[in-house]
Amino acid sequence: MGALLTDLYELTMAAGFVAEGKHRATATFELFARRLPANRKFLVAAGLQQALEYLQAVRFTAEEIAYLRGLAQFAQAPEEFFTYLQQFRFTGDVFAVAEGTPMFPGEPLLTVRAPLVEAQIIETYLLSMVGFQTMIASKAARVVEAAKGRSVVEFGTRRAHSPQAGTLAARAAYIGGCTGTSNAEAGLLYGIPVYGTAAHSWVQSFSDEREAFRALQKLMGESTVHLIDTYDTLEGARRAAAVGMPMWGVRIDSGDLGGLASEVRKILDAAGLPEAKIMVSGDLTEQRVRALAEEAAPVDAMGVGTDLATSADAPNLSVVYKLAEIEDEGGKRYTFKKSAEKATLPGAKQVFRKKGGDVIGCSWECAGCGEVGPVEALLRPVMIRGQVVGALPAAAEAKQRAQRAIAALPEAVRSLDASDEVYPVSISEELRALDARVKA
Amino acid sequence: MGALLTDLYELTMAAGFVAEGKHRATATFELFARRLPANRKFLVAAGLQQALEYLQAVRFTAEEIAYLRGLAQFAQAPEEFFTYLQQFRFTGDVFAVAEGTPMFPGEPLLTVRAPLVEAQIIETYLLSMVGFQTMIASKAARVVEAAKGRSVVEFGTRRAHSPQAGTLAARAAYIGGCTGTSNAEAGLLYGIPVYGTAAHSWVQSFSDEREAFRALQKLMGESTVHLIDTYDTLEGARRAAAVGMPMWGVRIDSGDLGGLASEVRKILDAAGLPEAKIMVSGDLTEQRVRALAEEAAPVDAMGVGTDLATSADAPNLSVVYKLAEIEDEGGKRYTFKKSAEKATLPGAKQVFRKKGGDVIGCSWECAGCGEVGPVEALLRPVMIRGQVVGALPAAAEAKQRAQRAIAALPEAVRSLDASDEVYPVSISEELRALDARVKA
Repeated sequence: MGALLTDLYELTMAAGFVAEGKHRATATFELFARRLPANRKFLVAAGLQQALEYLQAVRFTAEEIAYLRGLAQFAQAPEEFFTYLQQFRFTGDVFAVAEGTPMFPGEPLLTVRAPLVEAQIIETYLLSMVGFQTMIASKAARVVEAAKGRSVVEFGTRRAHSPQAGTLAARAAYIGGCTGTSNAEAGLLYGIPVYGTAAHSWVQSFSDEREAFRALQKLMGESTVHLIDTYDTLEGARRAAAVGMPMWGVRIDSGDLGGLASEVRKILDAAGLPEAKIMVSGDLTEQRVRALAEEAAPVDAMGVGTDLATSADAPNLSVVYKLAEIEDEGGKRYTFKKSAEKATLPGAKQVFRKKGGDVIGCSWECAGCGEVGPVEALLRPVMIRGQVVGALPAAAEAKQRAQRAIAALPEAVRSLDASDEVYPVSISEELRALDARVKA
Repeated sequence: MGALLTDLYELTMAAGFVAEGKHRATATFELFARRLPANRKFLVAAGLQQALEYLQAVRFTAEEIAYLRGLAQFAQAPEEFFTYLQQFRFTGDVFAVAEGTPMFPGEPLLTVRAPLVEAQIIETYLLSMVGFQTMIASKAARVVEAAKGRSVVEFGTRRAHSPQAGTLAARAAYIGGCTGTSNAEAGLLYGIPVYGTAAHSWVQSFSDEREAFRALQKLMGESTVHLIDTYDTLEGARRAAAVGMPMWGVRIDSGDLGGLASEVRKILDAAGLPEAKIMVSGDLTEQRVRALAEEAAPVDAMGVGTDLATSADAPNLSVVYKLAEIEDEGGKRYTFKKSAEKATLPGAKQVFRKKGGDVIGCSWECAGCGEVGPVEALLRPVMIRGQVVGALPAAAEAKQRAQRAIAALPEAVRSLDASDEVYPVSISEELRALDARVKA
């Protein structure tokens, strides 16, 4: 599975490491975000499960190896390299923070300790998988906060960056706090609640809107959500009300959603249907969700698609995967980069979380352990020698973790409003000393 | 394959259509972009090949059907529905514009004519696949235009919205004009040129940068690209120059790329290596590419990642899939939506391209055929009764088509500068008359 889904330079380097006899050196790489995206004050870690599934399954097929043999870049590669690819497995260790954990820039979400070539080849896939899901979970946390207790359902697969991205976005959005998704595959694969009833084409395929509503209710009973804006929203509401209970309620997908929801609420109440609910959708963004919640629009649920599944206001996350140390027969070296704006700290790290802030320290210390109050070391072993350690938590558990942890963040960090206040993350004295020693 | 990768409402509607005996009605849906994204004046169609591969392979597995049976939404679904899913195949017709064709809002990229339920179930996947690749090909066309003849290599898989999105982005970016990609899987799957040599970790894994450069050159010969900014870019350039030819050249991945490129050029020339080339990369955006090209920085190639593979300045495309007509024993009905800002025109359409602009007309007319000059009908049959018609053009052919067609666009449409000038797209008299008649 998918070993060729990587940047070519991982493979040319692999050939070089084999040629140089360096491929058995043990490398430690750390995956972290350099910066917070625009409009974010924290990240929500996600994507670990799919990263580990990949690490367990990753292989090169004979066709893939033949393809590489034919490329100019491998013309001088030693035969041993191609043999190596045939036998390639991921045999390393992985330490990671639990999915649903709020994280901050510079803090490793995941640490890989593996033979150098293995650790390189997996880089591209891990960055993309963990980076994408973390970005979406982080966006979802904001949209859910903006909705002030109203249900948010992820609706974005059709505008996601490929169908597979849609399924993964549904998972990450759920971890970030959404109630569920419209994506049926995500429902099956990840045990996420799924939602959906009918589109405009349902209404259009009947010559009469009332007939479309009656037919839907006959099929779906109390799960029924009538889509009422195909022709005229208020007339649609009256026609849906005329069908009567049982139904979940109605959905408005266009127009002035807040104003229409108020009018529709009156129509439903006047028809004696106060228990019929209102869902709104249609190019909803975090900002529009917030505005609807702040104007106290009578809306019970919101379907948010494009803005959520593409993290539209911040559509990428500056995740990187950097070599922290390398060890071979000659001993261990702590590695770092000095490149402008891309400098890194040397050595394998741990993230210590305690009341009042985080400390990034060396993996072997216990930063802050002597202080008052509990300290949690966030990076824990999840894979040893290529085997997953214990059962991975389900998406639902990651969601619960995120909800508890986000609620415990300082108000200014949790708030949607821009502020200069940042969550305190410091570097331990031991890590500072190592950095000074190594760079000297 | 992947039939469950759809929005749940497609499936609840499917159950309803089966229950109502409507599933054998023939529906025509059209896939088009409602609007141009920010900063775009045209789109480049892409994604057709993967859409057709999906349509040929789409099936429900027994596990997927069992999952649906267990959902509350299908509690009253007729048994016939589940039997239908077991036998589900796509048996319809598809008309599409060739990949690489410049397109404008409202113009169908793809038309599906199929039994109603089939046409619904495939909606979500088609929108996501065609919408995403079209978005990226359109972005790539701008980045390539900005580079003013310099090579642009797509580098974005690690920041793409999932690994699979990265592979598809590589394909679409190539169609939009890129020279190639760093994604090795895209190279194998789509026949795209692949590029890559070494990352910072290559240099870091040696205790001496010079040793790293010598080892790389020994392996890669004239394909060698030395990454020179791990510690000090100019010192790195001197060390690379000291290794001498053969090499392709050097890459600078951080700092003031234009200024450094000028200094590095001097170092290479002074060392008697005028044929050694310079590549730059590192958070390059369309704007930075343009600035480098405009300041005539001595740069031969640019690696563009995140900005390109996520279309960062416009990370989604307003693609929709709308019912245009439906036909059953009772005859044909032309369908439309009146929803605010989401109104559609009725009836199956054709896009006629001629010098001076496009005409969107009815599928059965030949708009503009009587006028002087050639007229091309862009939508052509690509699948008949579920079978692909003829060979699909390779990505390389789609790229060539795009390059020719973009070069033929009016200067103001091709230009990167904002302008009020829009490419002329009109509605034929026959389509206007149909719209008036149907909506009356």
